[in-house]
Amino acid sequence: MKKISILGSTGSIGTNTLEVISRIAAEYVVIGLAAGSNTKLLREQVRRFNPKIVSLKTKTEADRLKSELGGLPIRVVHGPEGAEEVARFEENDIVVSAITGIEGLKPTLAAVETGVRVALANKESMVVAGAILKSLAASSGAEIIPVDSEHSGIFQCLAKEKNEDVARAILTASGGPFLRTPLDELGRKTPEEALAHPRWKMGRKVTIDSATLMNKGLELIEARWLFGLEPSRLAILIHPQSIVHSLVEMKDGSTLAQLSVTDMRVPIQYALTYPERRTSALPALELGTVRSLEFFEVDEERFPLIGLARQALETGKSLPVALNAANEAAVEAFLRRRIGFTDIASVVGEVIGRHRTREADTLEAILSVDRDTRAQTEKLLEQRH
Amino acid sequence: MKKISILGSTGSIGTNTLEVISRIAAEYVVIGLAAGSNTKLLREQVRRFNPKIVSLKTKTEADRLKSELGGLPIRVVHGPEGAEEVARFEENDIVVSAITGIEGLKPTLAAVETGVRVALANKESMVVAGAILKSLAASSGAEIIPVDSEHSGIFQCLAKEKNEDVARAILTASGGPFLRTPLDELGRKTPEEALAHPRWKMGRKVTIDSATLMNKGLELIEARWLFGLEPSRLAILIHPQSIVHSLVEMKDGSTLAQLSVTDMRVPIQYALTYPERRTSALPALELGTVRSLEFFEVDEERFPLIGLARQALETGKSLPVALNAANEAAVEAFLRRRIGFTDIASVVGEVIGRHRTREADTLEAILSVDRDTRAQTEKLLEQRH
Repeated sequence: MKKISILGSTGSIGTNTLEVISRIAAEYVVIGLAAGSNTKLLREQVRRFNPKIVSLKTKTEADRLKSELGGLPIRVVHGPEGAEEVARFEENDIVVSAITGIEGLKPTLAAVETGVRVALANKESMVVAGAILKSLAASSGAEIIPVDSEHSGIFQCLAKEKNEDVARAILTASGGPFLRTPLDELGRKTPEEALAHPRWKMGRKVTIDSATLMNKGLELIEARWLFGLEPSRLAILIHPQSIVHSLVEMKDGSTLAQLSVTDMRVPIQYALTYPERRTSALPALELGTVRSLEFFEVDEERFPLIGLARQALETGKSLPVALNAANEAAVEAFLRRRIGFTDIASVVGEVIGRHRTREADTLEAILSVDRDTRAQTEKLLEQRH
Repeated sequence: MKKISILGSTGSIGTNTLEVISRIAAEYVVIGLAAGSNTKLLREQVRRFNPKIVSLKTKTEADRLKSELGGLPIRVVHGPEGAEEVARFEENDIVVSAITGIEGLKPTLAAVETGVRVALANKESMVVAGAILKSLAASSGAEIIPVDSEHSGIFQCLAKEKNEDVARAILTASGGPFLRTPLDELGRKTPEEALAHPRWKMGRKVTIDSATLMNKGLELIEARWLFGLEPSRLAILIHPQSIVHSLVEMKDGSTLAQLSVTDMRVPIQYALTYPERRTSALPALELGTVRSLEFFEVDEERFPLIGLARQALETGKSLPVALNAANEAAVEAFLRRRIGFTDIASVVGEVIGRHRTREADTLEAILSVDRDTRAQTEKLLEQRH
């Protein structure tokens, strides 16, 4: 019996994780839940899965849930410290880290520090603190298993392969809703249009990142740390069908790839059951029905954030932290209609262009770069207004 | 330093193997060569690779080579017993089994019996004697590593996976030169047209088998024994680009696949160096240039031998032996222009339809079924004439 806590239980990854667990319930049990503002759904999850610890966003909501639960032996906590407490809960065997953005960093660090398995969906924590997470995992014995479909694919392809035998790992990108939109129309695209992803149903932040391809840029940086592959061994291919999630090209000319139907429950379940596999209720992939898988190079004029992400990947230090912070702020501004779609890349580009790269090898340094960059981005957004 | 003998050194697999060895020569050395009628090429190979044992087709040719070699310490043997002697040569670390057809069976058995690594390209031996080869390998400690690109792909995808976790292994077929030929024109296709394979450069027998898709039928039966997968877990997909060689669908909905440029040196090198990988001189696979990979179901009306192969796969016992014998004889008759292209399938179908399935669990029984079936096929060919 494996005991699981989910950080970000009401989001897309969180709810999919709970569905997976319901299916393989004989061996996996939910023990902790931490969520943000969707208190209604969280309360339903508490009733259904009966965890031992729950974290809500605010003290008011936590107090209300406590009184509702009456004498039930469920510990109710709140806020960022609450999420960290769930992450550190001593009975955890697996922590699913699925809070979006830099907000997921501290709980992820907390989980890794306890030495459990961390099923990692929060890519931003690897982007900003990959070196810290890797060394922390090495000393605590934590296993970091990727949940992103691309990284799950690479992880599966690498099975028995040696790092030095890998020529390149290639992450595929669907290209999002604007893959073929005329360039001069991109600027007028609304949040609603950007949120209509053709392949994946995901949270708002990652869906916008998929439309700009920043999601793939962040994933490149994530892959660098997860698999110890330097920038020259990481590549991206556009693959509109989103069936091949990633490919690993070996130095002898053989390439391994991982494919599945476009459903996050596949990599989520694998991250929980690895090295075992469990039968899934999902339909099998029928390539004879799909018929054609297309691949082409990324057009960096259309997707300038890819170039910025590669720059951050190669430079390292504080630049990936600044990239992530500027992007989080710009995406938020786009969703609030403060800027247009193509402004996301130009705002991030401008902030990154002005960034003075420095060391960022402690949590404090990372959070300080994050705060400073957000403030700079906000200033820029106000000037543009 | 690994010492390698090649059975069938002048054929397509044999010459490609020698090219691979030339490239990784620091660690691999040719120690034995056995060939059929291409004595001229064999003599060049002897001069270039300086093996310790060589087998030629006839005593006359062997005697001639002996006198040419003068006092050189090279043992020269001949005929089927000669090939077996090369297969059993005591210094072998690896035997590449690449004689085409049932003729490869006895040397393959001999190599497996000595407990070395057998890089298996002779699929017919697995088709007719899979159970014997597997049990012999289990007792001698021989490693059988597939050379066929499809099986090499499955082998690589299975790396750390468990047999019971595999939902299906899917072998791809290019579909050969007649994939889109109108059905009513198939009957008039000449050996020259059938030998013009769009993707792979191979020997004559296997190229005709690729045009009829019998090659894929034989590979299904080979996969059954190599990987211990029963018929219901084996499938075929047409994939004209021949880039994805095979796919392994796991029970949790995740599919692994192996891809490479269409060049046999990739799986040959892997079979020699496994579990290591060595840098290859081949160009990397560039999916962004290939652009599209297509997949569709097999049309069994066009390729009736697939249905017959599946019947042999499911029935087992002597039926795969008879299938293989009838096919070898029918292909030979087609290449000699005794029958038309579509007659290959109808002749094999007629012979198989009349075959009385019996046990075939000893070498003697297998060879007896093979002889009987060839005689029956010849009789049928004469009647048709």
